Amino acid sequence: MKKYGFGVDIGGTTCKLGLFETTGTLLEKWEIPTDTSNEGENILSDIAKSLNEKMEEQIIQKDDVEGIGIGLPGPVRRDGVVPVCVNLGWKNKHVAKELEELMGGMRVKAANDANVAALGEMWQGGGRGCKNMVMVTLGTGVGCGIIIDGEIVPGSNGAGGEIGHMTVNRHETIPCNCGRKGCLEQYASATGIARLAREHLAKEHESSLLEEIGEISAKAVFDVYKDGDDETAAAIVEEFAEILGNALSNLACVLDPEVFVIGGGVSKAGKPLLDAVEKYYRKAAFSSCDSIRFALAALGNDAGMYGCVKLILE
Amino acid sequence: MKKYGFGVDIGGTTCKLGLFETTGTLLEKWEIPTDTSNEGENILSDIAKSLNEKMEEQIIQKDDVEGIGIGLPGPVRRDGVVPVCVNLGWKNKHVAKELEELMGGMRVKAANDANVAALGEMWQGGGRGCKNMVMVTLGTGVGCGIIIDGEIVPGSNGAGGEIGHMTVNRHETIPCNCGRKGCLEQYASATGIARLAREHLAKEHESSLLEEIGEISAKAVFDVYKDGDDETAAAIVEEFAEILGNALSNLACVLDPEVFVIGGGVSKAGKPLLDAVEKYYRKAAFSSCDSIRFALAALGNDAGMYGCVKLILE
Repeated sequence: MKKYGFGVDIGGTTCKLGLFETTGTLLEKWEIPTDTSNEGENILSDIAKSLNEKMEEQIIQKDDVEGIGIGLPGPVRRDGVVPVCVNLGWKNKHVAKELEELMGGMRVKAANDANVAALGEMWQGGGRGCKNMVMVTLGTGVGCGIIIDGEIVPGSNGAGGEIGHMTVNRHETIPCNCGRKGCLEQYASATGIARLAREHLAKEHESSLLEEIGEISAKAVFDVYKDGDDETAAAIVEEFAEILGNALSNLACVLDPEVFVIGGGVSKAGKPLLDAVEKYYRKAAFSSCDSIRFALAALGNDAGMYGCVKLILE
Repeated sequence: MKKYGFGVDIGGTTCKLGLFETTGTLLEKWEIPTDTSNEGENILSDIAKSLNEKMEEQIIQKDDVEGIGIGLPGPVRRDGVVPVCVNLGWKNKHVAKELEELMGGMRVKAANDANVAALGEMWQGGGRGCKNMVMVTLGTGVGCGIIIDGEIVPGSNGAGGEIGHMTVNRHETIPCNCGRKGCLEQYASATGIARLAREHLAKEHESSLLEEIGEISAKAVFDVYKDGDDETAAAIVEEFAEILGNALSNLACVLDPEVFVIGGGVSKAGKPLLDAVEKYYRKAAFSSCDSIRFALAALGNDAGMYGCVKLILE
């Protein structure tokens, strides 16, 4: 194994780049803007330029670099081709091969960003020591990365781990962004929790939540919940936790992972959130899956970069 | 690759044994009783004796056999150890190693029977040509084998693919065999379909199903359904198909397989059953999973033996 590896997590606005030792230490991280103009044709050359500059600055030889891992916000086929990535403007782009050429033959692997984040958490974060895990990312939506025997499960259409679109309520009348109704994401994402909160508050007159200025957020709900004596906040969190805990108990019957790692912005609420979800999971879980653990993600926004590096170590 | 392989599917009553060419042709199959006396201590030596006799009879040298694959009705760890198998009386048994010794060093691999059946259907049956598939077995219960990138997903506790215990109805009052309520198995197994039928018939006075002698069965429901003009049978099948189709749409978001292969005794109802389930799947499915196909299992009770042989080819 060579000494260094690069992790590149491409987002719609910025690319996060990291220089790692292949033992798992993040040595340095920096960002460059994502130039999505002209169907994103400059993204990979901008990345190559930045990586080359960093190698020059740190006096790192090409022969000391194991490779470059890339995460991106869309499905990636096993051969490194991106069929379509709306946020970057890419279509049928052979990302791995193109960056490989731009970097003078350096090894490149690419995968979906939710999946590399899961891989990162398995390698150096909340799932450390496990080879079978499910990472659930509670952000604007509900993302998920599934790792089986140390490998990402991308799915045959890149829809592996799209648990945000499991139907959890067949009686929902309001549509999800996907056009269907009753998706997990409608209740367990930051947006979903805020929606549950608005529904609860429409029926309540006494709640510290009512004093929130501007729009009710998932963060506000958990902040008030953690203070401990607001019944409405408690009711909202219980509803969220029951829906997510039940959904994870169904996932457990299918995949039987060692651990569920919970990440994303909403997970900053920390242990009280984890405890609430786990309580409902335990109530609902199939007995063979009793030993499954719950853990908080530990790498924050760096998880993707870590996972990118892990990609090239395989 | 050597010319021959043996597949041994161990059941609680009989062991099915098959001599295969490693190209996938079943040359001969036979059965021996499963002797579960004394904690099943004779099962493996009985199998070894039968395999040795067959090799002698067919004048097959040990060097011409790639190995022996075993399927059994319980969880099997990756190292070939069976932690517990109630139906065979085994506990902490290193099945692979023991049979290997009994067969003079021949290669042996072992896995769960539902999982090897899935592998068999992928190799030579309804999932031929696919590497990502979910096989759903509708029998007394609802079994399932998950294959990702050509490999079985056993789960960290051997509960991978236990989709029969996904909760599909949180309002169910009658308990499942597992002690929980509202499991898929309570509606989509042979027993479950018969139960749905009894519920429907309790409210109906006109149905050809009422003429069935003795106990109402899933087979009777589908037989009458296929005749085409019994409203009660149609209502029962629609209810079953909606529950199973919805559950598979949730599975699709998680695993995104290429194909769902439907097998087990109930699947003998054939295309009308497949069409009904697929109709509800299409209604409920996440758009990225639209291309997933449905197929009937093709190998019947031999699927396990086929999968056992596939195990040793890896």
